[in-house]
Amino acid sequence: MPQASLLAIGNELLNGAIRDANLFTLSQRLTQMGFSVEYALMTRDLPEKIGLALRFLLDHKPDVLLCSGGLGPTEDDLTLAALAQALHLPLVVSEAAAALVEAHYSRLLAQHYLAHPGPEFARRKMSTLPEGAIPLPNPVGTAPGVKLCYAGTHIYVLPGVPAELQAIFEASIVPELLTLFPPAAWVERALLVHCNDEAEAAVPLREVAHRHPGVYLKSLAKPFPSAGVEGLRVIAAAQAPTTAEAEAAVTTALTDLQHTLEATGLRVTW
Amino acid sequence: MPQASLLAIGNELLNGAIRDANLFTLSQRLTQMGFSVEYALMTRDLPEKIGLALRFLLDHKPDVLLCSGGLGPTEDDLTLAALAQALHLPLVVSEAAAALVEAHYSRLLAQHYLAHPGPEFARRKMSTLPEGAIPLPNPVGTAPGVKLCYAGTHIYVLPGVPAELQAIFEASIVPELLTLFPPAAWVERALLVHCNDEAEAAVPLREVAHRHPGVYLKSLAKPFPSAGVEGLRVIAAAQAPTTAEAEAAVTTALTDLQHTLEATGLRVTW
Repeated sequence: MPQASLLAIGNELLNGAIRDANLFTLSQRLTQMGFSVEYALMTRDLPEKIGLALRFLLDHKPDVLLCSGGLGPTEDDLTLAALAQALHLPLVVSEAAAALVEAHYSRLLAQHYLAHPGPEFARRKMSTLPEGAIPLPNPVGTAPGVKLCYAGTHIYVLPGVPAELQAIFEASIVPELLTLFPPAAWVERALLVHCNDEAEAAVPLREVAHRHPGVYLKSLAKPFPSAGVEGLRVIAAAQAPTTAEAEAAVTTALTDLQHTLEATGLRVTW
Repeated sequence: MPQASLLAIGNELLNGAIRDANLFTLSQRLTQMGFSVEYALMTRDLPEKIGLALRFLLDHKPDVLLCSGGLGPTEDDLTLAALAQALHLPLVVSEAAAALVEAHYSRLLAQHYLAHPGPEFARRKMSTLPEGAIPLPNPVGTAPGVKLCYAGTHIYVLPGVPAELQAIFEASIVPELLTLFPPAAWVERALLVHCNDEAEAAVPLREVAHRHPGVYLKSLAKPFPSAGVEGLRVIAAAQAPTTAEAEAAVTTALTDLQHTLEATGLRVTW
């Protein structure tokens, strides 16, 4: 199973101003595509911290590293400078990136959405990439995404604005990942165990998990007392080449879990 | 400013099953208390991954490290074993933790909420802590929180269930942090710049940020085209010993920003 790691950059994610949404979106989409997401890290807009975070994630040699945030024209948009430094690459103006930025501004001017084509320093900043990087068109914003291969890791850098991140991810990254890594299906189901104590289900859950090593089984404990919460939710999920195979694996494991729990006197509903 | 880092543990956070809420809650609360949160990391339920994540975060010597998840009775609850291994500490049964677990079950039995006092292996697991660790009472669940000092870092381990995490954090950790670190106030305000391009505001924003180094200023770019979005939101935030001082710093910086932006022809509303 190919491995992915994620990095979200921005003080606003760590000072309570904004609740990050990108790590969850990317985790979910990558899982659906057959990846195992190993780490998701948030760090501040400081080149040294970004560099240490990148080194930590790259040291584990993920197949894919997706970074979000810090691509814009403002002074705290430092992601590409930190990436270049971490990889010992110079920053250079990319003709391809400059063309994307110019085309974006031309479109907005033609639509009378903007009166000016953006200050020169801003256009230059958003066109300056680590050497060898390839810009990815941004359908809903100015700063292009960035793609770079390093020591076997496919690195993608995306803007932090969720709509921009998702647009670039779906348009440019998903098609590429589907050709690079064999796609897989991901199926998830839950059942409800009618008990108030996660510990009561622990032994049956362990037995069933050992009988179905390809299925991810997880009980989600609930706080006590919780009005309206009827029991313990158990998630089962599996990745397989096809949806039918993943569904069969999940259903077989949950049926086994149901019988095993019922044999201990616990009631189960799907 | 004291520094904090956060670690959330659980496959379900990285496979799209659950969107983590704890990192955001803790970031916000710690910021309000005067901490700078440096890193927030999510990792899977694998002892090796948890260990590498702990080492990365501890290597930067935060004043406080808060971990969530993996304290329960099930087989994938591995946080304390991984912590003990990372710190080269043996795991030992804590009399104090055992007393908390027993008291919890006695209360639930007396209330007829449970019929059994939990399996022995589960009670034992939740009472087994790294040597020297202190259990923290869990007002709304079974597994106690855990506190441990290591090389100058105050480590706190909390259950992943948000209600349990928050209850232990507010009851046991907040009062302790307020005595260990001087409390500070955190004030955040936003204004709206009536322009469609973040780049237009970049130079004034940089000038103002340089004039107010104690105030965090951040423009949040918006996707284009965005119906109903009127302009660019700029956040200003500051920490200070008192709320009045933090408010004064934020207001002074935003007033300066307003005048500076208006001098370039941009309209601003608060």
